[in-house]
Amino acid sequence: MPEPRTITEAAEFIRTGELTPTDLLEQCLARIERYEPRVRAWAYIDCAAAREQAAQLSTELKNGQHRGPLHGIPLGIKDIIDVFDMPTGCGSKRWAQSFARRDATCVERLRQAGAVIVGKTVTTAYASFDPPVTRNPWNLDLTPGGSSSGSAAAVACGMCLGALATQTGGSITRPASYCGVYSLKPTHGRVSVDGVLPLAPSLDHIGMMANSVRDLALLFNATAGADTRSPETLARIVPDPFGNRYDMPRDPDMGYEHNWLCVTDDFFPPRCTEPMRTAFDTMVRTLVRYEPTDEMIGRVHSVSLPPGFAEAPERQLTVMAVEAAAYHEPRYRRHPDDYPPKITSLIERGLRTSAAEYARCKQFQARFTDELRTRFRVLLVPATPAPAPPAETTGDPTFNSPWSYTGMPVLSLPFSWTADGLPLAAQVVAKQGQEDDLFRTAAWVERVIGFAPRPLSL
Amino acid sequence: MPEPRTITEAAEFIRTGELTPTDLLEQCLARIERYEPRVRAWAYIDCAAAREQAAQLSTELKNGQHRGPLHGIPLGIKDIIDVFDMPTGCGSKRWAQSFARRDATCVERLRQAGAVIVGKTVTTAYASFDPPVTRNPWNLDLTPGGSSSGSAAAVACGMCLGALATQTGGSITRPASYCGVYSLKPTHGRVSVDGVLPLAPSLDHIGMMANSVRDLALLFNATAGADTRSPETLARIVPDPFGNRYDMPRDPDMGYEHNWLCVTDDFFPPRCTEPMRTAFDTMVRTLVRYEPTDEMIGRVHSVSLPPGFAEAPERQLTVMAVEAAAYHEPRYRRHPDDYPPKITSLIERGLRTSAAEYARCKQFQARFTDELRTRFRVLLVPATPAPAPPAETTGDPTFNSPWSYTGMPVLSLPFSWTADGLPLAAQVVAKQGQEDDLFRTAAWVERVIGFAPRPLSL
Repeated sequence: MPEPRTITEAAEFIRTGELTPTDLLEQCLARIERYEPRVRAWAYIDCAAAREQAAQLSTELKNGQHRGPLHGIPLGIKDIIDVFDMPTGCGSKRWAQSFARRDATCVERLRQAGAVIVGKTVTTAYASFDPPVTRNPWNLDLTPGGSSSGSAAAVACGMCLGALATQTGGSITRPASYCGVYSLKPTHGRVSVDGVLPLAPSLDHIGMMANSVRDLALLFNATAGADTRSPETLARIVPDPFGNRYDMPRDPDMGYEHNWLCVTDDFFPPRCTEPMRTAFDTMVRTLVRYEPTDEMIGRVHSVSLPPGFAEAPERQLTVMAVEAAAYHEPRYRRHPDDYPPKITSLIERGLRTSAAEYARCKQFQARFTDELRTRFRVLLVPATPAPAPPAETTGDPTFNSPWSYTGMPVLSLPFSWTADGLPLAAQVVAKQGQEDDLFRTAAWVERVIGFAPRPLSL
Repeated sequence: MPEPRTITEAAEFIRTGELTPTDLLEQCLARIERYEPRVRAWAYIDCAAAREQAAQLSTELKNGQHRGPLHGIPLGIKDIIDVFDMPTGCGSKRWAQSFARRDATCVERLRQAGAVIVGKTVTTAYASFDPPVTRNPWNLDLTPGGSSSGSAAAVACGMCLGALATQTGGSITRPASYCGVYSLKPTHGRVSVDGVLPLAPSLDHIGMMANSVRDLALLFNATAGADTRSPETLARIVPDPFGNRYDMPRDPDMGYEHNWLCVTDDFFPPRCTEPMRTAFDTMVRTLVRYEPTDEMIGRVHSVSLPPGFAEAPERQLTVMAVEAAAYHEPRYRRHPDDYPPKITSLIERGLRTSAAEYARCKQFQARFTDELRTRFRVLLVPATPAPAPPAETTGDPTFNSPWSYTGMPVLSLPFSWTADGLPLAAQVVAKQGQEDDLFRTAAWVERVIGFAPRPLSL
């Protein structure tokens, strides 16, 4: 029986009948049994409910009904997103048994597309920076990253083929990078936040993790778009609900001007540790050399970032702290015991911040976003300064928080391994609403680089 | 220090400074301490949070800020409606610790209007028919009615001056009547269902209980109106957020044609037991005699109801059963132990019902509603067939479910006492969206009848 790693492969096996949704789910449950005791990616698993869904979707296929490429695909949902009759624990002690009375809109859409919800993946407390119980599957002494720790670790272990995650600073890109999986943080507002715990609403994004660029496009297509329950969600309509719109082009050049893919010497390279800098340089050289014609040399282009770029992470953190305090303050005062140290100091920072300072950070956010928009169409930079650090931290979000601040879409993909066997990842950034650019560019990079997944040695 | 019974009285004391929000809350908390051990109206009380809100609202007043007539008014919220960081237990064992991450829209609006949220009032399991732990404050052997049992009992005991409640069959009017408090079930869709457990969405109403007609108008005004989170909510805008729109007219005749208040010999009187029939007849005679002029004799008019009226309760129950099954089925199958007998048989009835039968009941609902609309502008009938029955039941909803079925607004008010000291109530029904008619008529009836509240003998 085939054991597909990606949604794209699994979908083809399911469509042709080589695998049933039940077969596929059992493969995931077997990996959960094998890895979960050490990795601890899950806050809640409902095997019975998942088996029931898979059985029903298997029956549908027997009857000739096929919902599309997510039909029968096992997914994990970050534990700050509501799934009907599972607790939304949010990494809180006091909320650990808070069962949801309905699906969040993004979960409801995945179910309608045929996904099987396996359970809830571990989040750091309130999606902030406190280290979670989850460990990095590539080295159990290291962090999987945060705050979408369980989603990244579960997808890396094949416990599910994709997962929903959220990012306010670097909570999607960072854990995906540390765990060697692909991730998408869409444009701010493209996926509804209905049914999701807020951390800082002007920065909160819903996104996804999986094992290929095309998988991310499938998950994005199933979830993005206007939601009558969430007035914040952008009304822009996603053209086709089942991925045809984002089928990867065979020719990555179609329709693009020269210099469409940019790299930069600013901000990112000086902040990288070895081996990230070397590995990233090697990758860029591979991309530049891909086809040694004049046309292709022109494809990868170097740009300079705005001078204020280095201030963005700190200002993003101020906005995050203030908005986190705005939401949590009354509860934090009543139940300080339910707030671990990092979220406590985030809230305290927010409470100390003057309104004028917050206003300045919001104004800077608008100017900074406008300025970045003129610098590139697609930017390729390292996703993190270094591979995963020890489990006492959740890692450094400074390479990610600027994109949460501007709301620009980011797709991250693993591209190399360190000598110690840790994955390294790059991130592709595009203009707001231009997820198409991300998918095309990332698919081209994925094909040219030919990143080789490795088996876990857990 | 004055001890107001109604929101209207309390609001005046607070406005003039004779009472602070803290004084008023402490009066309510003292009544909770006194009555709650026997009445058991509350699923969750957060005294600390309530005292904090009251203190803040007291400070605002000292600083000259007055939010309007709900400033500092202590309220209870039915336990299927979300209040931030309190559990929404829904009468479920498994959901008992399900803390809400935000306020339902109706709660948020009450808070903005200055209300103090004391806690969550007991609901029957999933707002269905299983007897609750709550007892009737007028006789502890009797039911308070259901499903908004705790809201009715708490308001009757003065543990809060008003409460939110919900009705799908007779869950607002019935308990309010049994407990001797006033209630409003607004037009279907006028108050947002955002953040509220569904029972049967096409029949679910959010409403309120209090101790006077004007109090209901104040609560209605603060909560009704379009909600961007709930596309189901009617867009009709409530003119003034603080009750001036629904200030009771001094002259109840203003603008009305003759025969505006109707009574009927159909359906209701034959189904009443003594003493309800006698007491209701006496009340109608009082109204007719109120001003012995030709004009006034014409004011109260007798109409006939459509012949299909007697079928409405049974068909309403079919719709309720089917929609309850649609929501609960998957969870009911997985956790049958969390479903007591009455909700179980409701769901089972829904599962047994054919789609064709459901479709016929929905079609009848539309025709029946159209037909009723032509029969009267305002109808006055008994609110229940009899006073509160023993605690093994939640009482008979057949006098209430037709108005849930049609979505027509209903206001109930106590008008008399039985020889055993139990309250009896009448209900005023109007056309959809015509809550004004209800408030005017009910305020006139309230004034003419002069219902005398009694002290509890608990």
